[in-house]
Amino acid sequence: MKKPIITLLSDFGLRDPYVAEMKAVILSTCPDAQIVDISHEIAEFEVHMGAFVLASAASYFPKGTVHVAVVDPGVGTRRRPIVVETRHSLFVGPDNGLLMLAAERECIKHVHVISNTDFMLRRVSKTFHGRDVFAPVAAHLANGRLPSEVGPKITDYALPEFAKPTIKGSTLAGEILHIDDFGNIVTNISTKELKSINAKEGNSLLVKLNGKTSKLKYCSAYGDVKINELLAVVAGHGFLEISMNQGNASETLNTKVGMRISIRSM
Amino acid sequence: MKKPIITLLSDFGLRDPYVAEMKAVILSTCPDAQIVDISHEIAEFEVHMGAFVLASAASYFPKGTVHVAVVDPGVGTRRRPIVVETRHSLFVGPDNGLLMLAAERECIKHVHVISNTDFMLRRVSKTFHGRDVFAPVAAHLANGRLPSEVGPKITDYALPEFAKPTIKGSTLAGEILHIDDFGNIVTNISTKELKSINAKEGNSLLVKLNGKTSKLKYCSAYGDVKINELLAVVAGHGFLEISMNQGNASETLNTKVGMRISIRSM
Amino acid sequence: MKKPIITLLSDFGLRDPYVAEMKAVILSTCPDAQIVDISHEIAEFEVHMGAFVLASAASYFPKGTVHVAVVDPGVGTRRRPIVVETRHSLFVGPDNGLLMLAAERECIKHVHVISNTDFMLRRVSKTFHGRDVFAPVAAHLANGRLPSEVGPKITDYALPEFAKPTIKGSTLAGEILHIDDFGNIVTNISTKELKSINAKEGNSLLVKLNGKTSKLKYCSAYGDVKINELLAVVAGHGFLEISMNQGNASETLNTKVGMRISIRSM
Repeated sequence: MKKPIITLLSDFGLRDPYVAEMKAVILSTCPDAQIVDISHEIAEFEVHMGAFVLASAASYFPKGTVHVAVVDPGVGTRRRPIVVETRHSLFVGPDNGLLMLAAERECIKHVHVISNTDFMLRRVSKTFHGRDVFAPVAAHLANGRLPSEVGPKITDYALPEFAKPTIKGSTLAGEILHIDDFGNIVTNISTKELKSINAKEGNSLLVKLNGKTSKLKYCSAYGDVKINELLAVVAGHGFLEISMNQGNASETLNTKVGMRISIRSM
Repeated sequence: MKKPIITLLSDFGLRDPYVAEMKAVILSTCPDAQIVDISHEIAEFEVHMGAFVLASAASYFPKGTVHVAVVDPGVGTRRRPIVVETRHSLFVGPDNGLLMLAAERECIKHVHVISNTDFMLRRVSKTFHGRDVFAPVAAHLANGRLPSEVGPKITDYALPEFAKPTIKGSTLAGEILHIDDFGNIVTNISTKELKSINAKEGNSLLVKLNGKTSKLKYCSAYGDVKINELLAVVAGHGFLEISMNQGNASETLNTKVGMRISIRSM
Repeated sequence: MKKPIITLLSDFGLRDPYVAEMKAVILSTCPDAQIVDISHEIAEFEVHMGAFVLASAASYFPKGTVHVAVVDPGVGTRRRPIVVETRHSLFVGPDNGLLMLAAERECIKHVHVISNTDFMLRRVSKTFHGRDVFAPVAAHLANGRLPSEVGPKITDYALPEFAKPTIKGSTLAGEILHIDDFGNIVTNISTKELKSINAKEGNSLLVKLNGKTSKLKYCSAYGDVKINELLAVVAGHGFLEISMNQGNASETLNTKVGMRISIRSM
């Protein structure tokens, strides 16, 4: 039998014992689990960034993977702990939208509130549901227990509020979803929207960002422009990036997550 | 048969090859080991911080886990390498107090000095016992070799010098053990001491820290106060924390590890 | 049967989903893989640093390990993806010298260009060969597929251009290869060259670095000098380090990777 895979994503960082405590709890219940860290460097309480990083990575994991994600400013309050069952995976975490960008891409089947205390540690703190609730639930699911056993179905779960890109005439307007460690600026604009304004690889785009308009080549690889030249490219995650070949686009353009971007085809 | 679990804690960071070299040595001797990182971001040579993080995480791991910890300013000098056997786990590392906060919580059975060179790499450098001594010893123990085989028993091992909290009348005095990545201020004060000054969840505490006295609510969850409000809470590790709901308490109060704190119940 | 080991090294950092995507791809093809991170904190596009860190760690891994390394400023351009077969391991990555310091130490048998698309993901992006080419190739090799199946043999592969240390009379001249997280300054000078100028442990060396000449003790352990004193030591990786006992040598001497160093025996 294949070993079950459990992934972890959080804003806990790697300095403190929190991530290790979650792994200890998982291995106590499911000793065969193959645990994979997606990221523990999500900016504190940045549910949008967590949702984006989870959605980028989740689709590459095999069917049946259990994803645990904890970016949870409301821990210990009335926000609910949930399990989301999709056609491809299971997601475990808080009901604050964090899981839903990834889950919607895989087609959501059911969402359950976690209420069965048999699936939790005996003593549940109000400050660390990652260890006391989400980790043991994930381990039990990886052992073959059913999402329907954790608690009742709900339909009023929270969805993340990402702006959808808009098109007015030949102008596409969107926003910055994420800036990665290389300074690549990831937008919420996908290939589909680019096609609708007739953007074609090899041609140029007029990109307005942070009050400045630049004419950038729409490329298929970073190396298609000179070193330290800006470019536009649709990267592996399927979203348009503004990047700089071997340089840092975000520092050059002084951008932040959430800023507006507009694009015209030339 | 269950796969043996080996945990690693150090001040090596994740940029250099040191942690990977320890894992390579472990897997060469014990290919089935499930290796779990507790933290490699302990501040350099900060034995107290390492001891606290190890003690926080260790108790969540299953019985029989082998913990390797290396925060070792005296590497290559006369400080001894040891194995500590408790009722729950085995601890491998330097004899400088690092292992003992965790080990004492699990009830120490025996402490052995590592002297048997069959358990070490063939060439032992004087600069990296983590790889050349502690990793292979841990792998052999995970394979079922006995602590008594690594070397003779000792009783004069080093203990960490943490201040114990003191109580004078209705005032409890302690110190800051650790500041986590969220800016939560972890003290050496536990529920037991709080009970002895009649502190009750829901009431207020007078907290004196860094020359400033604040009246804080003694809560059971961060979300029990408003956003950016300070609070007192006993977190999952069992120690009193001074925290700020969705904010950074340590930056706000300008605190450091080792500072004194005093508490009065109201 | 032993579980195959696959190591990963990159300049991706641990914040973004990139490393997790590589692991997801590996586990989809080779569910039994034991994946070990060597480092993902290589400075961006610093092929020399990546080559040094890979060479330091690789030799400690068991025979048959598959090493994947991605520090790849030329991704998506004409630089070739390769597999290097040595007597001990397999290396997978870009043909830019990154793999060769490690591979040469293990005696290179053959180098193959990766051209067989059966070994790649169905859609290969031009921006992320780590996930789309190198990870699946490594997983197939770990499953027992042969390097000769990935593509034709080549002999004109790129080699890294490290300066070799030079000896003039009694003076040894080299350069700084790497500065680790402790501030230890790793040079390209090995025991062999030190012997040729009659350097002996316990004696002193005249070290010229960044325009300043210091007389340092040539030690076998950091603790052989006083706290905060500089020393010279050959560390576990086999290269001469300039270090400071419990301090940061690189900050004190204000050094950078690539700087020249000269040594005379006394």
